[in-house]
Amino acid sequence: MSFNTFGHQFRVTTWGESHGPALGATVDGCPPGIEIDEAFIQQFLDRRRPGQSKETTQRKEPDAVRILSGVFEGKTTGTTIQLMIENTDQRSKDYGEIARQFRPGHADITYHQKYGIRDYRGGGRSSARETAARVAAGGVAQAALRQLVPDLQIYGYMVQMGAKHLDRAKFDRNAILQNPFFLPDAEAVDEWADYLAAIRKGQNSVGAAIEVVAEGCPAGLGAPIYAKMDTELAAAMMSINAVKGVEIGEGMAAAALTGVENADEMVMGADGVEYLSNRAGGILGGITTGQPITVRFAVKPTSSILTPRRSVNVAGEEVEVITKGRHDPCVGIRAVPVAEAMMACVILDQFLMDRAQTGGIRGTIG
Amino acid sequence: MSFNTFGHQFRVTTWGESHGPALGATVDGCPPGIEIDEAFIQQFLDRRRPGQSKETTQRKEPDAVRILSGVFEGKTTGTTIQLMIENTDQRSKDYGEIARQFRPGHADITYHQKYGIRDYRGGGRSSARETAARVAAGGVAQAALRQLVPDLQIYGYMVQMGAKHLDRAKFDRNAILQNPFFLPDAEAVDEWADYLAAIRKGQNSVGAAIEVVAEGCPAGLGAPIYAKMDTELAAAMMSINAVKGVEIGEGMAAAALTGVENADEMVMGADGVEYLSNRAGGILGGITTGQPITVRFAVKPTSSILTPRRSVNVAGEEVEVITKGRHDPCVGIRAVPVAEAMMACVILDQFLMDRAQTGGIRGTIG
Amino acid sequence: MSFNTFGHQFRVTTWGESHGPALGATVDGCPPGIEIDEAFIQQFLDRRRPGQSKETTQRKEPDAVRILSGVFEGKTTGTTIQLMIENTDQRSKDYGEIARQFRPGHADITYHQKYGIRDYRGGGRSSARETAARVAAGGVAQAALRQLVPDLQIYGYMVQMGAKHLDRAKFDRNAILQNPFFLPDAEAVDEWADYLAAIRKGQNSVGAAIEVVAEGCPAGLGAPIYAKMDTELAAAMMSINAVKGVEIGEGMAAAALTGVENADEMVMGADGVEYLSNRAGGILGGITTGQPITVRFAVKPTSSILTPRRSVNVAGEEVEVITKGRHDPCVGIRAVPVAEAMMACVILDQFLMDRAQTGGIRGTIG
Amino acid sequence: MSFNTFGHQFRVTTWGESHGPALGATVDGCPPGIEIDEAFIQQFLDRRRPGQSKETTQRKEPDAVRILSGVFEGKTTGTTIQLMIENTDQRSKDYGEIARQFRPGHADITYHQKYGIRDYRGGGRSSARETAARVAAGGVAQAALRQLVPDLQIYGYMVQMGAKHLDRAKFDRNAILQNPFFLPDAEAVDEWADYLAAIRKGQNSVGAAIEVVAEGCPAGLGAPIYAKMDTELAAAMMSINAVKGVEIGEGMAAAALTGVENADEMVMGADGVEYLSNRAGGILGGITTGQPITVRFAVKPTSSILTPRRSVNVAGEEVEVITKGRHDPCVGIRAVPVAEAMMACVILDQFLMDRAQTGGIRGTIG
Repeated sequence: MSFNTFGHQFRVTTWGESHGPALGATVDGCPPGIEIDEAFIQQFLDRRRPGQSKETTQRKEPDAVRILSGVFEGKTTGTTIQLMIENTDQRSKDYGEIARQFRPGHADITYHQKYGIRDYRGGGRSSARETAARVAAGGVAQAALRQLVPDLQIYGYMVQMGAKHLDRAKFDRNAILQNPFFLPDAEAVDEWADYLAAIRKGQNSVGAAIEVVAEGCPAGLGAPIYAKMDTELAAAMMSINAVKGVEIGEGMAAAALTGVENADEMVMGADGVEYLSNRAGGILGGITTGQPITVRFAVKPTSSILTPRRSVNVAGEEVEVITKGRHDPCVGIRAVPVAEAMMACVILDQFLMDRAQTGGIRGTIG
Repeated sequence: MSFNTFGHQFRVTTWGESHGPALGATVDGCPPGIEIDEAFIQQFLDRRRPGQSKETTQRKEPDAVRILSGVFEGKTTGTTIQLMIENTDQRSKDYGEIARQFRPGHADITYHQKYGIRDYRGGGRSSARETAARVAAGGVAQAALRQLVPDLQIYGYMVQMGAKHLDRAKFDRNAILQNPFFLPDAEAVDEWADYLAAIRKGQNSVGAAIEVVAEGCPAGLGAPIYAKMDTELAAAMMSINAVKGVEIGEGMAAAALTGVENADEMVMGADGVEYLSNRAGGILGGITTGQPITVRFAVKPTSSILTPRRSVNVAGEEVEVITKGRHDPCVGIRAVPVAEAMMACVILDQFLMDRAQTGGIRGTIG
Repeated sequence: MSFNTFGHQFRVTTWGESHGPALGATVDGCPPGIEIDEAFIQQFLDRRRPGQSKETTQRKEPDAVRILSGVFEGKTTGTTIQLMIENTDQRSKDYGEIARQFRPGHADITYHQKYGIRDYRGGGRSSARETAARVAAGGVAQAALRQLVPDLQIYGYMVQMGAKHLDRAKFDRNAILQNPFFLPDAEAVDEWADYLAAIRKGQNSVGAAIEVVAEGCPAGLGAPIYAKMDTELAAAMMSINAVKGVEIGEGMAAAALTGVENADEMVMGADGVEYLSNRAGGILGGITTGQPITVRFAVKPTSSILTPRRSVNVAGEEVEVITKGRHDPCVGIRAVPVAEAMMACVILDQFLMDRAQTGGIRGTIG
Repeated sequence: MSFNTFGHQFRVTTWGESHGPALGATVDGCPPGIEIDEAFIQQFLDRRRPGQSKETTQRKEPDAVRILSGVFEGKTTGTTIQLMIENTDQRSKDYGEIARQFRPGHADITYHQKYGIRDYRGGGRSSARETAARVAAGGVAQAALRQLVPDLQIYGYMVQMGAKHLDRAKFDRNAILQNPFFLPDAEAVDEWADYLAAIRKGQNSVGAAIEVVAEGCPAGLGAPIYAKMDTELAAAMMSINAVKGVEIGEGMAAAALTGVENADEMVMGADGVEYLSNRAGGILGGITTGQPITVRFAVKPTSSILTPRRSVNVAGEEVEVITKGRHDPCVGIRAVPVAEAMMACVILDQFLMDRAQTGGIRGTIG
């Protein structure tokens, strides 16, 4: 069993290799009657597109998405939606030399060990390029959520890049889309840019931490016990290339808290229950509370670097690996729109799962 | 869609409420011919059983498991295995007062909101008692792994309890099962015990961090893209009650690393490829490398505490909640055997998934 | 991957062997707030219970169902529902001699070949006894449908038993539950009884054909392309022990029809679209039309008979098999309540699947 | 939940509408290292291609398949395989008039009722054109089976077309691919051709029955209880457009048999167990016996005919429907390669499922 599908109701199967003719997403289970077109999906793809700045790989791809099925006269029909993105800039030559070598910290060796064969061109299936398909599928989810959960807003941003940390006191949501780092602090952008430039000049790369927030999600979404909202979000984020840690609300810091500190106290407000804090990250018992859902995850540094590292090749010879070609010094940056897409897919999926079982009934308070 | 099942090939569906007549696990997909009996499973249940010491709830449950199907003459037959644990010590009276109130930081309110009805006795389905069923299912997985992956060893331990941290310099695996904290440092046990006693005396509770390691797992397990070994482990751990963060290898710390630091370099050793470090936690591209798999997760403090907290009730009245009854001051402690069980289930599941697709073929090196 | 689960939203996993301590069904995904108790489920079990008459096996089993989880204060909570039926009358001795032999036409040999081990007591997992668990799960589905699709009525009946055929001109629905054959023709009962008595006296058994009808099912249920209503019903019926053929509407006879004959013409009636015929069996393109859903299936004769048949044993020796013990001369009779249960599960499952994707919206006509 | 996926291990998701830009199949779970290319898949597509003779629709489509992912240097890599077929001959004008009308016996009305929107061009998603994607996916399954189960041979043929029946005494497998009816009797071809010509001249269409056989399938495949080999085959065939009945082995005729007649007796032959008959169609208890697997199914007549039929339109007006355009007078003919493809997918899926659970171990006899 390979496993290129995620989601239960809203099921996305991604396909395609970095240097194949195309890649895309096969979306099954989308509600019918959702207004959507290629331009709507394209806006999300444009945000993760390579070649936007010197902070991201210089590979030039228009990443133009085509809807091949499932949409008729501007609306979804309830049938399979096929989204295709053609690979236009492949330059296989760049990658020829890694055909026999394994990059340290990269999936090269494990794909070889598992499958006995791998498409080594640009990392093949293990390339972060696969995430373009996720972003396209996320666009469909965003279109559906726009109609089904109109108050929902999903936004992600960088909170850390190597030694640089976001100063939360200066958090400005409006700044996020104004800079190539998705950084919610306009003043810090130059500093981060200089830092990353130095990393690149040092023939190195660096890790990052991203936070994604969903505001306006209704209470009651999440399927205990094994498809809890936090479980699904953790799986979604951990499935993104190079992610090694995921946190909901307090995350790992919860280990240091006492029960008195951790209790998100409740009072009755004008619109019903109000929480005095949100250490739970908007999820209790795997079910949403109606507070903002907050997820944080860490992305390890790009494993493809110009600094030589010790490794082996298919023949079992020890080699020094230097990875030329076009690679982001910080893959975490482009993980921001990917994480937003994954969160949109998970929330839509949970909305549909909840609608199936409960029909949307809700226990009232007061 | 409720979602009480986890796993793809080795599929475990848990059932039962804290104060119902019984709870258990329905296990589908277990290979046939696996030697197993109730005593083998019982040893794992005994490790998480309540009432073992003052560190865990005083609720007295023998937690005796019965195999109702799927095993014949001491071996699995390949059919559904039903594991049942009867609830013998329920004392529903203890819990009567929370029928209308919602404990801050607890699933009481979200279950009510989602389903419009909840079994409030002892937390019903959201009780950590559900994890007994996971441990029983984990016992089946351990029996299968004993035959299919004989070199595999899975062990978990506490690395943090509130303000107390494991001193890794003193790590002693043999100490883990010698103390009620699953602490791999015998010398620190009294200090941790005093700390937790003070927490309880203060009518409080505290969080914890647990680490689980799998040694001897072969390379090649893990199903990219959306059932990666790390994705499945993250989901498995995040599905455990009160878990808010999961890390693989370096985890969140990967955000601070450079590519040079993060690269797990490789050389050729006597038995093939040898890694000079294991920042990846034994997983690259979602597929195991053959190194130890290391997972870490944080458990928030018990939400049921004696210190009054502000909350609301079903009628929409503001109330002060004080939770009497028998509750662990640190639920994280008993999460250790639960996490071991989840890891066993995930590794077996991935072993079977890999066997399905690849037939166990492996790409050779050298 | 074993596969003891059916359903997508309403997911039933059955467990248990013919002569184990118990068998049952683990039901996941049931909507919350459904009124149900053991007595409601029991009425369905009582209809398939053995030992009711000389037409069915003399094995005496109360088949008393217990609800172990998922129901609180008379209503479903949305969590896993565990249904258990204890085996009280086992008499393993009766079956000892088939431990090494394979009954012709029976699963004995294939279970042995597939798993290398089998619980030979009473056929173990392959026994028709497994269907008791389906009927219990069907009771839960019936309870949910009673609230969600109140107009729905599901009823099955025999249309053939060996050489005996139902005379449709005499169809009387009220007669079905008045005789042990579920025969909708009171006058024919004695004749069928004599026929079956002769079959038994001849140390033989006989096949049967059953028809199941669902009236009052709304239009719009069914999930093209691969979970069509007819696809799911075909799978459900074919999964019942000894079933070898399934027909929807005209069934196999459709091969002889012309397009002019086959077209179910439509007119506008007082309540909207009216069909002038129902050759499609209430399903077009895998989606219900609102007409009665009609399914027919054939059950082969019991393979356990007293007439000696040539076979082999585990040692590879040729043997003559005579199966003593308590066996129905026509297993098809008890397939009637089983098929009703499967149809209830499928329709509920499709109702929930449709609710997930469409939210129950419907395209209007006129 | 829409449901455009079939299979458990070998999972095929089809996409595309009759008159969209393209259609195809997304194949997940294919074993790695399988030799395959577009030409191999194309041979299967060529057999179902329209426009081959006057017996099938005159729509001219090259139906050229492209492999967009999952294959590298002539072998599968274990990642998602995307197969795309572009629609080159659409002529939407032909279909304009059915935009508001519902063809009797067609999915037009139920798609409208379920989704509130439908792509009416050529039947959109409900068109038999979807089966081209199945045939392409079946080509991948055939390639995998060629390596994994080399003795397996799958072949289908017509056994009935309206009033015409195959004379089994004249069965000649070699004749099947020599005539446009997949008829295993060369002498009868002209007679069938004249019969079908008369049907068309009469502005009518006709149903058909097809039989598919798999020889050389090993014993032990099939996943009781709910993914039995016969259950999966029944679902696979019933999911094909216009199919209304499915039979395994004796099928519906089993209802007339006695146990003595139905018992497939066994003796020991040179190569182990030998069966003296095959009424079970090669499947006992849902598991293959090693005998030929025989499946039969009925296809109803094309609902798009030139003879006027009474119907209604979206406005709720009564209309007379006459369907112009290019339609097969017997859709059953092209169901033959489709059924072969479905059978190949099911057998491969079961082979992989079995490999997962049992590792291919087998209980021996003698």
